Amino acid sequence: MQRYKAIITYDGTEFAGYQIQPNKRTVQSVLEAVLAKMHKGHEVKVTASGRTDAGVHAIGQVIHFDSPLAIPEEKWVTALNALLPEDLSILIVEKVSESFHARFDAEGKEYRYRLLLSKRRDPFVRRYAYRYPYTLDLEAMQAASQYLVGRPLDFTSFCSAKTEVADKVRTIETIDFLLDEDFLTIRFVGNGFLYNMVRILTGTLLEVGSGDRHPQEMAEILEKKDRRFAGKTAPAHGLYLWEVFYDK
Amino acid sequence: MQRYKAIITYDGTEFAGYQIQPNKRTVQSVLEAVLAKMHKGHEVKVTASGRTDAGVHAIGQVIHFDSPLAIPEEKWVTALNALLPEDLSILIVEKVSESFHARFDAEGKEYRYRLLLSKRRDPFVRRYAYRYPYTLDLEAMQAASQYLVGRPLDFTSFCSAKTEVADKVRTIETIDFLLDEDFLTIRFVGNGFLYNMVRILTGTLLEVGSGDRHPQEMAEILEKKDRRFAGKTAPAHGLYLWEVFYDK
Repeated sequence: MQRYKAIITYDGTEFAGYQIQPNKRTVQSVLEAVLAKMHKGHEVKVTASGRTDAGVHAIGQVIHFDSPLAIPEEKWVTALNALLPEDLSILIVEKVSESFHARFDAEGKEYRYRLLLSKRRDPFVRRYAYRYPYTLDLEAMQAASQYLVGRPLDFTSFCSAKTEVADKVRTIETIDFLLDEDFLTIRFVGNGFLYNMVRILTGTLLEVGSGDRHPQEMAEILEKKDRRFAGKTAPAHGLYLWEVFYDK
Repeated sequence: MQRYKAIITYDGTEFAGYQIQPNKRTVQSVLEAVLAKMHKGHEVKVTASGRTDAGVHAIGQVIHFDSPLAIPEEKWVTALNALLPEDLSILIVEKVSESFHARFDAEGKEYRYRLLLSKRRDPFVRRYAYRYPYTLDLEAMQAASQYLVGRPLDFTSFCSAKTEVADKVRTIETIDFLLDEDFLTIRFVGNGFLYNMVRILTGTLLEVGSGDRHPQEMAEILEKKDRRFAGKTAPAHGLYLWEVFYDK
């Protein structure tokens, strides 16, 4: 058996998220169906760096799987893409040691949240950016983000109340803001993110930016360790899993 | 009654084309349903500059309609967009004289056909550009386009055999090619275009670009006045109705 690491990209619009669910079209189920086809019906389990929710996109999601097939790395890309639907694509496949694990070995991740700051609707970005037609105070958002970065913090207030992991301490290295005409992209780089965390952080930062909250409130929200004190969960369709980092 | 001209944009993906059809979601039916809602259920007929096929996008389609409502122009935009789905949007509404006609007064149109020249699939453009993974000889395509522009020509060979209009003479002013990284956009500006004409022109130019035809064949195809001599119809999802021109 050979273990393979693959970098994949998908448009989340028509997937019910990453993880397998009965009778739903998910990224994992589509990948495993294609791998089973390549392995004469034998099941091949796929493990990702983490789940993504329904509607969330991925530019560089990472998975691993094991296969007895001796196929060169570039041929894997071609063979898988030939069988995969157009909204899910393999970018790179590489051989890795059998100890590699897409989830446990991930050292960090980058997520990006994309906003269209416009009163004008754009049919072509409706699924790829969250349209926010109100004026934003970017400086206030930057000030708020400083409460969230640079050291290990308990993000209980900034994750779904349904989060199952016990340890909710994570370190966000960077939150920055890239403004390109009407598009604002918020970039989050950190050692890990909890369930809905980027979307709740984004929703809360938007409330700061629109003047509904003071930047200093971030400290209080963190302290409360209660989801109800943070802002709204921003919609899934603005969110991109951009990159997963591994120690080389 | 006041006549209004409106510029609209739509993502063609989920529309069965522009024109009303029973039990189908079309641009016209969605527009007329929203206008009926604004007029207490009274029918308001919408006339466009021309139809677009299922899957074809519009950046600047033009329509007209008549209404007894005394609403300022900008308020029309807001009111209609509030009721319209996100994949169809009103850009501008303006009062026009009752003699204005979106179709009969159109002096010309610009269409653009967008290609992704890449072996690599991109889930995010799959509905917004036609992926063409083969090498193209742009100079040959430019040479071929010279047979098609600058004077009135009978485009019988370059329109669907189902085309119903009798006069198939049109003048294409410009066909040009804009290359931006992996994206090739072919721009067509002319006084009018027949059913499927831009898609058949594009399909034929691609056959020239990939070396399957000589540029000079364009003259022969035109002469044959028979659809079977031209190339394949390029897929709908790469095509954009970009602008409609009126005499001011």
